[in-house]
Amino acid sequence: MDEVFHALADVTRRAIVERLVRGPAAVSSLAEPLAMSLPAVMQHLRVLEKAGLIRTEKVGRVRTCQIEPDMLRTAEQWLGRQRTHWERQLDQLDEYLQE
Amino acid sequence: MDEVFHALADVTRRAIVERLVRGPAAVSSLAEPLAMSLPAVMQHLRVLEKAGLIRTEKVGRVRTCQIEPDMLRTAEQWLGRQRTHWERQLDQLDEYLQE
Repeated sequence: MDEVFHALADVTRRAIVERLVRGPAAVSSLAEPLAMSLPAVMQHLRVLEKAGLIRTEKVGRVRTCQIEPDMLRTAEQWLGRQRTHWERQLDQLDEYLQE
Repeated sequence: MDEVFHALADVTRRAIVERLVRGPAAVSSLAEPLAMSLPAVMQHLRVLEKAGLIRTEKVGRVRTCQIEPDMLRTAEQWLGRQRTHWERQLDQLDEYLQE
């Protein structure tokens, strides 16, 4: 989870995730809208891959990236659990104040 | 969002969030189960506070922390949007394969 949240703590890496949830993409096409060098993009992709958020695959001369949704789901579920506890606490406070 | 995800990319800070969604707590009681010095705990609290995930308040000699749920919700919603796009893509692939 440390690696997942660390990977998402960067606006470029979040932009890459936002692109890849819409479908797989070649590294070159991911790099196109980003104002940075290809090695810098590759570095970001490595952070995302190490966190288990994306998978990359080289076919011939083209490296393609695709999302790995499991870790996104794990992070979302952790946040959802925190919200549930928080809402339960609010409800209890509410009941207490009404008594 | 960078600061929010960065703040959550640490197991101690997530443990503090997990504690605070159950209700406010004094810094001393937050520090109790953590195997670290009080200054180290304070440092983690500052990261969480800077990210807008918690609020701290000093009353007399006791500093109390409480959760600020808005940023947790924002992070959860971002992840939820990515899941929605991903599921839509899966559905489209499914339709395509059935045609």
